[in-house]
Amino acid sequence: MTNRTMISELKSHIGQRVSIAGWVRTIRNQKRIKFLIIRDVSGEVQAIAPSNHASVPTIAELTPETVVRINGKLKSDPQAPSGIEVEIGELEILSRSEPELPIPIVTKKGEADQSKRLDWRWLDLRRPERQLIFRVWTEMERAFRAYCVGVGYFDLHSPKLMSAPSESGAELFEVRYFNRKAYLAQSPQFYKQMAMAAGFEKVFEVGPVFRADPSFTSRHTTEFTGYDIEISFVESHFDVMAEQERIVVAMLKGIRSALQEPISRTFGQEITIPSVPFPKITLREAKEILKRLEIPSERENDLAPEEERRLGEYAEEQYGHEFLFVTDYPVEARPFYHMRSETDQRLTKSFDLLFKGVEITTGAQREHRFNVLVQQAQEKGLRLETIKFYLNFFKFGCPPHGGLGFGPSRFVMQLLGLPNIREATYLPRTVNRLDP
Amino acid sequence: MTNRTMISELKSHIGQRVSIAGWVRTIRNQKRIKFLIIRDVSGEVQAIAPSNHASVPTIAELTPETVVRINGKLKSDPQAPSGIEVEIGELEILSRSEPELPIPIVTKKGEADQSKRLDWRWLDLRRPERQLIFRVWTEMERAFRAYCVGVGYFDLHSPKLMSAPSESGAELFEVRYFNRKAYLAQSPQFYKQMAMAAGFEKVFEVGPVFRADPSFTSRHTTEFTGYDIEISFVESHFDVMAEQERIVVAMLKGIRSALQEPISRTFGQEITIPSVPFPKITLREAKEILKRLEIPSERENDLAPEEERRLGEYAEEQYGHEFLFVTDYPVEARPFYHMRSETDQRLTKSFDLLFKGVEITTGAQREHRFNVLVQQAQEKGLRLETIKFYLNFFKFGCPPHGGLGFGPSRFVMQLLGLPNIREATYLPRTVNRLDP
Repeated sequence: MTNRTMISELKSHIGQRVSIAGWVRTIRNQKRIKFLIIRDVSGEVQAIAPSNHASVPTIAELTPETVVRINGKLKSDPQAPSGIEVEIGELEILSRSEPELPIPIVTKKGEADQSKRLDWRWLDLRRPERQLIFRVWTEMERAFRAYCVGVGYFDLHSPKLMSAPSESGAELFEVRYFNRKAYLAQSPQFYKQMAMAAGFEKVFEVGPVFRADPSFTSRHTTEFTGYDIEISFVESHFDVMAEQERIVVAMLKGIRSALQEPISRTFGQEITIPSVPFPKITLREAKEILKRLEIPSERENDLAPEEERRLGEYAEEQYGHEFLFVTDYPVEARPFYHMRSETDQRLTKSFDLLFKGVEITTGAQREHRFNVLVQQAQEKGLRLETIKFYLNFFKFGCPPHGGLGFGPSRFVMQLLGLPNIREATYLPRTVNRLDP
Repeated sequence: MTNRTMISELKSHIGQRVSIAGWVRTIRNQKRIKFLIIRDVSGEVQAIAPSNHASVPTIAELTPETVVRINGKLKSDPQAPSGIEVEIGELEILSRSEPELPIPIVTKKGEADQSKRLDWRWLDLRRPERQLIFRVWTEMERAFRAYCVGVGYFDLHSPKLMSAPSESGAELFEVRYFNRKAYLAQSPQFYKQMAMAAGFEKVFEVGPVFRADPSFTSRHTTEFTGYDIEISFVESHFDVMAEQERIVVAMLKGIRSALQEPISRTFGQEITIPSVPFPKITLREAKEILKRLEIPSERENDLAPEEERRLGEYAEEQYGHEFLFVTDYPVEARPFYHMRSETDQRLTKSFDLLFKGVEITTGAQREHRFNVLVQQAQEKGLRLETIKFYLNFFKFGCPPHGGLGFGPSRFVMQLLGLPNIREATYLPRTVNRLDP
């Protein structure tokens, strides 16, 4: 739009004619003067017209959330909400809003419940505090990618349509693919490992992953964005954990440097850059700590959400740290391709990373030795025929490697203190929700 | 891997002990000396051992493509292929390759046919010229994102699972979604427009799009990566085209600056930065040009591949330009949500962008006026019920906006002169191919 000035940049135009465009947040109809608050993606500003102005008939018809363009003179006014206001010259309606909004947008009346807000997500997202969540996403991903590209990773786009399940076959979505069946990838696991067999050495992928998980929790959706990495020539899972630390630090530095001020103001959160290395405990040690804290253990081989939460508190108290690695998960709790510990064959060279008491990452060194891998698959009861293409990756020279899958929506949820993962997702998908 | 030096960085370590790791490309067994060529992701180097060396029994067992680690002393040798070689101290086998490779990898024997190469894609991708294609991808995406983030775009991740088709319902993959049906998104079209209704103003998305298109051509796959943008407060589709020009220039500058040398060497392509604005013709003018060139017109309202190719030649001859915008497609050839021309209601405010005679982008200004949109949908025979959630985006104030979908795999194919799109895709999906 020719000559449009973003509202956040008006302050350098005092005394000049400006053109702004945005949504009418509020209309205040006083006898001698009409006040509008106009909102664009960058901020809000007051616009005024005396009651004898040519635009007043148009103003009389305005409804909140109508989109307008205003040309006028910008002046400073200490009484105006942001110290400046636009004296309306011309006012043009670009898109009229129906007078009744299905959910309140920017008022002091409070909010609709989440389910209704998600039904009208595009109105819900007009609130600046919601848009900030996606500014954080943008910066998080920028920083993640800048780190990876800077140290030589390939940016991978692997297919989401597969002929066979990548893992156990549970929680799998089935697709009609011409005259046969396909499945939606539950992770890029096999394909990023294939890149290691192809000699790419370091890859990352950002993309959707699909889990036909019928559970209703604050941290699950059926489709979500995953950040995945895989790196070759690792000595053990500890190399992967060190890479995860560097990535987390890069993302937090990026977000803090770009957005600390609005995050403090909106969410009351101070972003701290964690010290490295992050504290690490084995799952066995974690279970002992939880026992001392008298937390009942629901699952022997894994951590329940309440256990993770208490371990988060423990890491805060014990190490003054928001992050905690839990390592050495038993074979029963991990997929067949996780490498086993050299010192205890019942354990895997695996880890989870907790952030403020919520698991955000799962990783491991992978088993790259063909014979061992076949044996481990058979022990887990997998039919070798269905993973034949995968097993072939390891027949013609495949370096030792490891990787991780990181959940950016959980990370944003924890970072900003959001109540659940749906708030950190543009359009969440759950068992009951495929719209809008 | 502790102390590993990448092969490309060896030159600064002459006279020192180094540790390298990679794939055995070739083994040459001479009487007095054993020669290996070792390849990692960064390059190749020769390693040697005299025939009485402790590693010789291991070397005798080596097969090509086995993964090894070598410690040894680096010395300069004008006779060695890269002027340096590693005198083997210790040689360790990390992963042995079977002696018979299903396709030749790096030899002078030539290549298997494409279908067989794709069956063994992870071996095919070991060729440095293949890896370069994905270095180009990485840099292309870095530059695309850097441009967008730099001018204030949100990075969007919209869902790929939808309750209803986004467009006509043709070429749609159906998913079993618990006890109902879902569909795979054919584009993020509706969701990026939703972001405009939400006031995000500028969004981009990089993600998979799915087309159940049964055609077998050099430029179609059933799943591919799309780069999408959508921007608000445009005056017309020409604003979107100007943004496309800036994006293309940013990507080409990035790729040229990072990779011109290996691209010239490998693909013989010189990357030129195009002048702006790009040449523009209407579809009607395009058809007149083709008529003068005596190219038979297969389709009245659209361009066939051969027509695009000839227009690419025309742009090169007429304007000395690799890019050509074709605008003003008739209503019949475009979806219901494209805005119509103010001066001729039979035409839309739409465009395609051709790059060296292949369509890489489709874009338009969108119809944001609720009543007009409903009317256009009805004219196209759409059931309003199935697009109700979409139509609701336009009821509560939606700014004028437009956007485009860009095909990065086609762009890479054209840029590097690849014979078809499967070469520019990590793991292509076609009617007959879901593996590996």
